[in-house]
Amino acid sequence: MKERIAGRRPIGIFDSGVGGLTVLRALRRRLPGESFLYLGDTARLPYGTKSPGTVQRYALNAARHLVDHGVRLLVVACNTASSSALPELAAACPIPVVGVVEPGVRAALRLGASRIGVIGTEGTIRSGSYQSAIARLGEGVSVRAAACPLFVPLAEEGWGDHPVTDQVARHYLEPLLQWGAGALILGCTHYPLLRPSLERVAGPGVELVDSASAVAEAVARIPEAAAPSTSGSGAGEVYIHLTDASDHFLRVARMILDGPPRHLEVVHLGEG
Amino acid sequence: MKERIAGRRPIGIFDSGVGGLTVLRALRRRLPGESFLYLGDTARLPYGTKSPGTVQRYALNAARHLVDHGVRLLVVACNTASSSALPELAAACPIPVVGVVEPGVRAALRLGASRIGVIGTEGTIRSGSYQSAIARLGEGVSVRAAACPLFVPLAEEGWGDHPVTDQVARHYLEPLLQWGAGALILGCTHYPLLRPSLERVAGPGVELVDSASAVAEAVARIPEAAAPSTSGSGAGEVYIHLTDASDHFLRVARMILDGPPRHLEVVHLGEG
Repeated sequence: MKERIAGRRPIGIFDSGVGGLTVLRALRRRLPGESFLYLGDTARLPYGTKSPGTVQRYALNAARHLVDHGVRLLVVACNTASSSALPELAAACPIPVVGVVEPGVRAALRLGASRIGVIGTEGTIRSGSYQSAIARLGEGVSVRAAACPLFVPLAEEGWGDHPVTDQVARHYLEPLLQWGAGALILGCTHYPLLRPSLERVAGPGVELVDSASAVAEAVARIPEAAAPSTSGSGAGEVYIHLTDASDHFLRVARMILDGPPRHLEVVHLGEG
Repeated sequence: MKERIAGRRPIGIFDSGVGGLTVLRALRRRLPGESFLYLGDTARLPYGTKSPGTVQRYALNAARHLVDHGVRLLVVACNTASSSALPELAAACPIPVVGVVEPGVRAALRLGASRIGVIGTEGTIRSGSYQSAIARLGEGVSVRAAACPLFVPLAEEGWGDHPVTDQVARHYLEPLLQWGAGALILGCTHYPLLRPSLERVAGPGVELVDSASAVAEAVARIPEAAAPSTSGSGAGEVYIHLTDASDHFLRVARMILDGPPRHLEVVHLGEG
């Protein structure tokens, strides 16, 4: 590792790109003083349109990189990877692995809606991960899901509050709203960036569930997350590794993290 | 190679995904009876948002794969790779390498417009490849370029004739139309799939230049393309290699090639 991470071992966070920074932000708020190592697989994004086998291979590459860099806990902040590769990641990693699906579902169920809508990438929706978690955890709760392939590019374009996004959202959400969804799980870490348009289209009767803070709560309850700090040195730092240098990532990171990342490195993962 | 390509060595075509099939279609029309090996790097698409260094690495991987499989000529059907990696590919390959930029520019110049607009991915536009080819080849011709990041996802979504695409196109094209572009180069092989919306927005006074047939013409003029046939066996076949199994690719391929591909294989390129 080119840049040594001082002090106690960081918490690792992994996403295909920039979306997982919303989870990093929630984790920093919930666990201030912790250090984080965030890996964005920007050279191979997006994951949401790729096959489960390829997503598993990429996710295992990424997890190995983070484990090799000494993280003590792995947060899979990518919904597609959480949906397609969580058992494989848990089996391959000698540390606790936390996905985003179950925390998001638990947060939605706490709202008490009997009809829950889920939106996500093609990979996430096709995997059925949200649908089966709701069936398992929510008695008497029914679920409908919709893949929204244009939402990630719209978020990446910075059109989170834009008439085109409103129109696309109406197209994707209409069937869920007509059906009477009382809560809508944003099953992709990019989607909170579209919140202004999504709120306008969903209307006041539908609660939007962003899993970022639910994931932060789930992580905080894991003993490894709360291990006593050994040294103040390096604490509270955010280290970012990217597989491709990306101006776009930096722009969004600056916005989400309220400033430019201080420790940034471009890394090559190799093939799994 | 799992499936031997019989007869004379095929022409290799490479794209990040499905867009280059428009070039394959034009080549089959221009060179009927030829065999083609098409490689779509679907596991790592899109290229248009990634850094030049990463695009070069991926393009060299892809070219090596095609050369190893015996192609006698390489068509780089991806505008981003043509813009960022053509000299590197030409230096690394022992066969002729044809990109899409110069044929597209020559086709646009033949229309006689004094103001040419170029649209493409962020990577293509940032590279300045079209701008410098027009400056070099077109005396007294001026050029303006616009990156259109949402066009590839819209084409992938199948919204080539859709009010949302019209609205997005108006947003991206307005500055070029106001400026008075007489021709508009579709500097991305996905964009012909958006032609209905693009024609509506550009209006009858602007010629849309799709480089696919221009590339086919350029290829047909290369001696290696016209090498005498050694055997009828395997002639006229299309072999498709993908780095990720993709239902989406198959759907679009069926549409563009007027039927399902007969020879399809998922391959791993490894890292360059």
